[in-house]
Order: sequence, then C-alpha cells, then structure tokens
Amino acid sequence: MSFNTDLASEAVDTLKSKNKSFKQYSNIKLIETSVDKNLSKQINKKQGDYYLIDISNEDTNDSESLLRVEKFITKVLKKILKKEKITNNSKGLIVGLGNLNITPDSLGPKVIDKVIVTRHLFELDKDSISEGISNVCALSPGVMGTTGIETSDIIKAIIDKISLDYIIVIDALKAYDINRINKSIQITNSGISPGSGVGNRRKELSKDILGIPVIAIGIPTVVDASSIAINSFYNLINNEQYQNLFKNYNKLNENDKTKIEQQLISNYNNNYIVSLKEIDIDIENLSEVLSGAIDHAIHF
Amino acid sequence: MSFNTDLASEAVDTLKSKNKSFKQYSNIKLIETSVDKNLSKQINKKQGDYYLIDISNEDTNDSESLLRVEKFITKVLKKILKKEKITNNSKGLIVGLGNLNITPDSLGPKVIDKVIVTRHLFELDKDSISEGISNVCALSPGVMGTTGIETSDIIKAIIDKISLDYIIVIDALKAYDINRINKSIQITNSGISPGSGVGNRRKELSKDILGIPVIAIGIPTVVDASSIAINSFYNLINNEQYQNLFKNYNKLNENDKTKIEQQLISNYNNNYIVSLKEIDIDIENLSEVLSGAIDHAIHF
Amino acid sequence: MSFNTDLASEAVDTLKSKNKSFKQYSNIKLIETSVDKNLSKQINKKQGDYYLIDISNEDTNDSESLLRVEKFITKVLKKILKKEKITNNSKGLIVGLGNLNITPDSLGPKVIDKVIVTRHLFELDKDSISEGISNVCALSPGVMGTTGIETSDIIKAIIDKISLDYIIVIDALKAYDINRINKSIQITNSGISPGSGVGNRRKELSKDILGIPVIAIGIPTVVDASSIAINSFYNLINNEQYQNLFKNYNKLNENDKTKIEQQLISNYNNNYIVSLKEIDIDIENLSEVLSGAIDHAIHF
Amino acid sequence: MSFNTDLASEAVDTLKSKNKSFKQYSNIKLIETSVDKNLSKQINKKQGDYYLIDISNEDTNDSESLLRVEKFITKVLKKILKKEKITNNSKGLIVGLGNLNITPDSLGPKVIDKVIVTRHLFELDKDSISEGISNVCALSPGVMGTTGIETSDIIKAIIDKISLDYIIVIDALKAYDINRINKSIQITNSGISPGSGVGNRRKELSKDILGIPVIAIGIPTVVDASSIAINSFYNLINNEQYQNLFKNYNKLNENDKTKIEQQLISNYNNNYIVSLKEIDIDIENLSEVLSGAIDHAIHF
Repeated sequence: MSFNTDLASEAVDTLKSKNKSFKQYSNIKLIETSVDKNLSKQINKKQGDYYLIDISNEDTNDSESLLRVEKFITKVLKKILKKEKITNNSKGLIVGLGNLNITPDSLGPKVIDKVIVTRHLFELDKDSISEGISNVCALSPGVMGTTGIETSDIIKAIIDKISLDYIIVIDALKAYDINRINKSIQITNSGISPGSGVGNRRKELSKDILGIPVIAIGIPTVVDASSIAINSFYNLINNEQYQNLFKNYNKLNENDKTKIEQQLISNYNNNYIVSLKEIDIDIENLSEVLSGAIDHAIHF
Repeated sequence: MSFNTDLASEAVDTLKSKNKSFKQYSNIKLIETSVDKNLSKQINKKQGDYYLIDISNEDTNDSESLLRVEKFITKVLKKILKKEKITNNSKGLIVGLGNLNITPDSLGPKVIDKVIVTRHLFELDKDSISEGISNVCALSPGVMGTTGIETSDIIKAIIDKISLDYIIVIDALKAYDINRINKSIQITNSGISPGSGVGNRRKELSKDILGIPVIAIGIPTVVDASSIAINSFYNLINNEQYQNLFKNYNKLNENDKTKIEQQLISNYNNNYIVSLKEIDIDIENLSEVLSGAIDHAIHF
Repeated sequence: MSFNTDLASEAVDTLKSKNKSFKQYSNIKLIETSVDKNLSKQINKKQGDYYLIDISNEDTNDSESLLRVEKFITKVLKKILKKEKITNNSKGLIVGLGNLNITPDSLGPKVIDKVIVTRHLFELDKDSISEGISNVCALSPGVMGTTGIETSDIIKAIIDKISLDYIIVIDALKAYDINRINKSIQITNSGISPGSGVGNRRKELSKDILGIPVIAIGIPTVVDASSIAINSFYNLINNEQYQNLFKNYNKLNENDKTKIEQQLISNYNNNYIVSLKEIDIDIENLSEVLSGAIDHAIHF
Repeated sequence: MSFNTDLASEAVDTLKSKNKSFKQYSNIKLIETSVDKNLSKQINKKQGDYYLIDISNEDTNDSESLLRVEKFITKVLKKILKKEKITNNSKGLIVGLGNLNITPDSLGPKVIDKVIVTRHLFELDKDSISEGISNVCALSPGVMGTTGIETSDIIKAIIDKISLDYIIVIDALKAYDINRINKSIQITNSGISPGSGVGNRRKELSKDILGIPVIAIGIPTVVDASSIAINSFYNLINNEQYQNLFKNYNKLNENDKTKIEQQLISNYNNNYIVSLKEIDIDIENLSEVLSGAIDHAIHF
C-alpha cells in the first residue's frame, strides 16, 4: 500500500520495523522512530531521529491543553538541541516555510511572526541582553511561486553570509491518515526532505547540504487527495462484511494491486490538498504553541 | 450514485433530465438548468433558474481571460436582474458569506471588500451621485462560529430595518467534480439552499424567506472529501480493464451499492474539504472578477 | 485650548472639575470620571461613568504585564456589568467597530475574532453548555465606506430581531496626548459618542438610542494630526525659556488665541491620524487582552 | 528649516538649486532632480537621478486614472533601466521592503505578492518561456524587528549566491508635506538611503554597496509627526496676519530658530507616523499600479 506522507512514523507503519517506540505521558503520546540507512531506503525518508508527538487526546481549542502541549514540545526540543550539541551560546536561525495566504500552509510564516528574535540586539546593543538569552534570528523566505527562487538557495545564501550554528525549520506537513491533521507534531534532526510539505518546496534543507544541524518541526495540516482515494478503498476492501464481494481483489499479487492503486489516484495529481473546514483557529493556536516552545527551548 | 454538490448542473447529471441546455460562446460554455417542482425533489435543490458558466477553457491567471469572464458574468447577471424586474432604481444589498481566514471560503468577504457601495452617498450627499449609479450596500456578516448568530437572522434583521428591493449573495460552493474547482460560476434566482457552501451555513436565504428576490452567485472552491472517496472508486469500477475483477459489485442492487458508498465515505464526515494547493491567487482574481461584474451589472 | 479626544479623562483636564478621582494599584492607575449633565455640555461627552485604566507603566510586549492588565480590566468590567444589572443570565452582543485593513483601527474586529461566542450553542445544543457560561454573540459590522450602511442601523436591526439584554462595544479611540497611544483603556456605560473613533462612525450607540445598556471599551490607538500641531505649539509657548519671545501671544484674549489655534490646525482636516511605527504587535496583544477580559467578566 | 523627508525633490526646495526641472504631461507632473556631489551633502541624499512623478491631480480610486499612472511609471522606469544598461537579457531581483502588518508600510510586500516572477521557470523549464520575458525574481525580506537580521545583509547574501544584474527596491517613504501622501512616486538610480522609509531600515541598498545597479521606487505613505509640528508652526508664523505678533521670532538668527524647531519636535522622536485614515484602499491600488508598471517595464 502506497503512502503519501511526510511523517516517518506513518511510513514505518507498513513495515514490521523495530525502529519505533511508544511512550505515553498522560494525554500525550510520544513515538520515536529511528531511521537508519536501511530503513531510509525503504520508507524514502532521510536518516535521523524522528519524534512524533501525538496530541489527538488534547483539545487544540483549550488553553490548558495547549499549554501542556507547548511544555511537552519544549522538552523534546531541548533534548534534540542537546543531542546536536547546541547550547545557549550557539547562534540559530528559525526558518518558516510556506505561504501566508493559504491557511493550512501558513503555519511556518505565522510562527516566524510570533517567535522572539535577538540577533539584532546582540549586534546593536549587546549590553542590554539578559543572561540566558540566546542569539537567534528568523526568516519567512516565501514560496517559489512568489519569489522565483529556491528556498534552499535563500537559506544557503544567508548561512554563507552570517555566522550560524544551527537551523530550526518550521513547515506544514502532509499526513496519510486524515485523523492526524493538526493532531501530531513531528520533530527531527534529519531536516526537511525534498518534495515534502503542503506546497512544492523541492530542495532539501539538511545538515548534509547546509553543514550545520537542521532541526525540522512539522505539523501535518493536510493530507493529499490521493490518500483519501486509497484509504477509503482499503477501508471498504478490508471490511469483513465485504470480504466475499472483493475476494478477487484480495487474490491479486502486489504488482497488480499497485496498478489498481495507480488507477484510484489517477485523477489526483499532486495539486489537491484535503484539510479541515475550520482550520484557521487550529493554525493560529498551533503557531502560538510552536513559537512559545521554541522560545522556551532556546532561551533558558 | 450520491452527489455532494451545490451545483444544480452536476446534480442533474445523474438524471435523464431535459431541463438542461448548453451554449458555447468561444471559450466559455453556458449551461442553463431549470429546476421545477419535480426536479427540485429529485436533486434536492430549490426551484429556480440555474446558470452555470463553465470557464475551464479560460486561464484564471491571465488578465485577458479574466476580462472575458467578467464581461460574460455581467451579461448573465443583467439578464437575471431584468427577469427579476430589478432596475437601476432598485435598492440592493450584496452579501458575502464565508470566512476571510480560510482561503477557499474567503471568496464572499473578498468580493464585499472590492464591490462599490453607494447607499451612504444616497443618504448623505444625494446630489453628488451621477446618473446610472444605483443604490447598493454590502455586508460580510461573518460565520456562525465567530458570531454565534445565524447569518440568515442578520440578513433578515437588516432587510426589516432598511428598505431593500433585492439581494445578491456571494458564496464559495462545493462541487462534486474536482475539476470544477474555480472553473465554474453558478448564478441562480433561487437563493442559497440550506447546508450549502464550504462552511456550515444552515438557514436558507431566498425569496420565500426574505420576501425579495435573492440572486446567488457561487463559485465551487472545494469538493467534499467524501466525493474523492466515491469518485475514485467509481473511476476504478467503471474502468473496462477491471470489469471482470469487480463484476460482483456490478451485480449488486442499488440498495446494496448505496451501503457500499456509505462505507466508502464513513470516515469523512462533513468536516474535510479538498482544495487546490495554490488557491490564493485564484480566489484573489475571481473576487476581482465577481466584484467587477456586479458593479457593471448594477450601475449602467 | 481645544482638545480632539475620545477620552473623558483628558477632556476634563482643562477644567477645574471635581468629577475625577485617581487610584493606584501597583503599576496600574485607575481614573474615574463621572460626567453629569453639566460636565457633559462642557466637555462634549455623553453623561455616564468613565473608567480610564492607565497602563503606561506596564509593558505591552511582556506576557506577565499583559496578564495583570487583563485581570484589572476584568475587574473593572465586572463592576460596571453589575452596576448595569447584567447577570450571568443576561444575553449580550459584543460589537467590534473599525476596519480590519487599517492597523490602528483593527482593534475591534480583532477582538471579535478572538472572543468566545455561545449564542448558537444555546440555540442548537443547550444541554452541552456548562454552568456559568453566559449567552453571548458577536459582530464586526464593518465600516461605512465598505458597507454603505450606518453601523448603528446594523446594530439596531439586530437588536430588534434577536432578544438581547446588553451590548459591549469595542473601538479604537483617538487621544489628545500622543503618550497615551496604546497606554490607556477607557470603559464606560455611556456608549460610543458620535464622531469618535479612528474612522468616521457617526451615529451613537447608547442606551438612549438602543434601549439596553451599552458598555463601551476603547483604547486610544491614534491622535489626530491637529493635536500634534496644537500640542507642539503650546509646548514651545509655555516653555519658560521662551516666555519673553512669545509674550505678545500670551497677552491675547481667549478668542484671539482660538483663532490662532484654528490657523495652526487649518491644514489638518479630520483625515490624518498619528500612530506608532510598530503598532501591529501592540494591537495584536491588546486585542488578546480585551477578548480575554471580556470572556472572564461575562462567563463565571 | 529642517526637513524630515525621503523625497529629494522636497529636500531641494529649501535651496536655490538649479538641479531641478519640471514637465507637465496632462494631469501628471514629472520633476527631475539631479543630485551631484555638492547637492548630496547639502540635502543628505545620495548622488543620482531622482524622478518624482506627481499624481496629485489623479484620483487613486479611479481605474482610468490608475491606468494612466501605471503607464507613466512604466515609461520613466524604462528610461532609467535603459540608462543603467539593463536589457531584456539582464537578470533582476525585486525587493519589497516593509511590514505587511502595518498598512502604510505594507506597500513593498504587497508589490512582491503581485509582481510576476520567472526565474524558477528559466531554471526548471526554459523552453516554456516566451520571447520578451525577462529573468526576474522577488523577495520580501521582512523587517528587522521580526527577523533580527539587517535587510541589507539578506540582500547581499542573495546577490552573492545567485547571479544578478540589477535590483529594483520598493519601499514606503516618508514625505515632509502631508499633501504628498500617496500622491507622488519617486524613482531613482541612487538606491535606498540609510534611515529612510517608514520603519527603521538602516543600512543602504545601493550600487556602491551591492555592486550592481539599484533602482529604488518609493511612494510617500506617511509623514513624521515632527513634520506636523514644524509645518503648522511655520504656517502660523508666515501668515501675514500674524507678522506683528511673532515679529520677535522672525528677528532671530538661524541658530536660535533651529533651537526653537528642536523644542517644537522634542516630544516626537522618530516613533510616530502620520497617515491617512482610509489608507488601505490607496495602498492596495498603488501596489497594483507599481507591480503592473514593473511587469511592463521589464518584460517587453
């Protein structure tokens, strides 16, 4: 079964992999997926540690829930920063990918609008800076349809120009399972893989390419239309009640099944996204949560 | 086969109805659907004349294309206004339904931002008004999730308060066929039916309820996630290549087929919408086109 | 000296009035101005109780400061609601005046976007409502330049249509003193007077007109350009150093002084507003504070 | 008399300079100011050619007026591009300075949203490009308060990374005369000088610094509050009627007059801007005009 997802955790679900572990913290579930060289090829995700924070039991409209989520993300983020040897004295750049004018793709730019930046204070008025405050700047580079420039070229240019020790990238992601929309946060040290996200952001942002650690924080805000086509079909086919009706299908070999999947998704090139009707409030709240978590993880 | 659509033209496609006529005007196709009492029950759309302007052969990013579309809409709108006995001396209210913060639902409010209003000039400075300028006002009432008030209650209240002869309602609609997204304009004298649109706008705005003509202009900017589930399945089932594989299905009676459709869409309650990735530019351009067409149809 | 201000407290400053009292609560100062019939004529403000919450010693970029301010506003608001005999069982409408597209005028609409509404739940699903939750709805009617309708007509229409016990109106105000921009919150039971606010909102919203209590909450986000002209001139004239230079002026009678004031402001009709360069963040934070305070004052 | 202005034409008005010429083209006036080494020191503007297109006799709400203005700007822009030896084969970057969230400062980012970009097509699908289409990309770098990075550092980084032949910078400017707000377009080959614009954008973008031609297009959307203080005072002082009253002032030497000016503006540090009440519509229309003019000047 083919998966169109940016979540390593979902991609691994098809395999009998042992690279995945669960932990439950009251309402919040943490799923760690370690993608090694082997697994990387199988699921087409870059090598690295992937943390999926499952908040499907929290209410993204409730301020106490949101505070719990923010604290949890802060903790996971601090752990990864430490692992990547990023300290309070490291200089960071927060990058918000996506398009402010398309609601489910506006997560990144909205986080950039809210996150605290200090780099200019370090340059202009160093004495005014309290202890614990770290040197950080931020950028919403915009989407290629508006700029005509590859986002990775903009980011590389800035890294070459100003001295930086690490990058945190925020992006709206694509899930396979519609129930994950706005209900998971993926944090990884592998960067952002090519072709991921809501829009068409093609070149990867990673330590391999940029030379410094790249922590990617993503929230699935959409699924691809093709995922609906595939998912609804398998829901039917795998329903016990209809086993007999579709028994011919179940007898097919993997190759033929794949052909049928191709037929199912043939009308949905990569241009259609599925999202929640009332996504604006979630995006507003989640961008608040992410910017708060980043602020708390960086400055301490 | 069940259809989740706001377009009368699509709804009629399932029936062998004669209430539909086509005309081709260079790139633009006009489909007229006359919904009488009988057909109204069959397709669950209010009685009235429905004009579907099919612009799938025009380019919504090209200014000359957009100008042609604007002129065509103006003509259709003038015809309907005339039929409804609305003249230059009639007083109108333009209502933009939808949520400004959700891109595919922002069409209505964006038209209201752009449309010319004159009512206050008639009240405050009547002598300044050129001949041909009609008395018109406009309102974006907001969505019930933000106001807590039924939109129809707000509109009814205003009609009761200020003297009005007709209403034009703009709304983002739901199509069944994903290819119609941003590629059709439906204009009807039947008003807006309950349950239609991208959001949850429940009570109808119509002549029956409001006592004055209600012209509704809608553009399908989304399809329901369930339409993808149904449509992709039938695309597969009806493919000649797989006739044999699914022959058991084709032998089922309508009742059983409906059960299977229910199973296919069971995960997609009304909360998921499918839209184009780069919908922001279309919405911007189409709101410009609609406001221009309304201005030209009303003031002459 | 002429004052172009929406703040009763500022208007009273010219008079030797005893209708004004101060209280200091750590960083926050509360100024109560009781405007009776007599004073109303002198300062051209409607009769009523005016509370000015002076937050010039709080930092509108600091979350702890903002929380203190929110709590203080909640307390003042509760006091006024009680005085007006508004209880948990009263039905309210929150009205956000102003234009979302002009930053210093967007306060009202932004509060409406954030405030909790419950009226639709009372109508549709009464059993789901927890104890303490009050029945409240909200509206951003838009500005007359966009709607062509007087805001007061829209509000009156809705009051006539749906049963309501009180109204809370939010508006961006004009101060005389540039230092008060975003540094004061005025709350009054007198409603909103004609001609006030950033835009041209002409007809008053008050208990006299609407028949139910109207609580107005305003924050000065601009001063008029004419206030700069007047204020800078008097700053110079009243400077001891230049007493001799301008002694001829000081000998003039009030009438002649007024003529000179007219000359000073002659280039600044009502169309120019003075605001802070980086006003966007303040407006965002203050709209958050006001919506929070309203939520806490109403539901308890 | 001190001037706080970004317009060379205004700055020159204080001097008996011959570096200024006027031409009238029906409703539109063109003022050319050539700033040489000498004049540069006197008026504190960089050397270069400054074109001020005065559109105070055009109506920025009328589509025919706007079209005339767009065509005029195109012509001036073409002339400057030619002078700078920029051809159809040159590669350009359009930079929109300013803050999208503050209405009078949003001109630059809004132009970037609307301007046509082609660089990605040249990279990805060169054969699809029609003759006459030029290679151009665009960027809204954001403001330092949000990014923590000097805008000039971002632009320099990108120039170093991708091959470019010229830059066009769009910015909202500050005028001295309140009547020029949204009524002039300044185009210059001198770049953007430090300290100009609505916000605090400090480091210059110019050929000297960046090594390639920098064409700056600016529209004054604000005046500084201090300009109101100065201007209103001189309006009074220079009024014949009050010559006698202020004769002592007129006898002062320049040094003492400057002290008085300092006193007049002492309350208005650089943080207050004066703008039009209904500036949103102008900014929307003018950003449309500028993006159209740039498109037509570049691609031909």
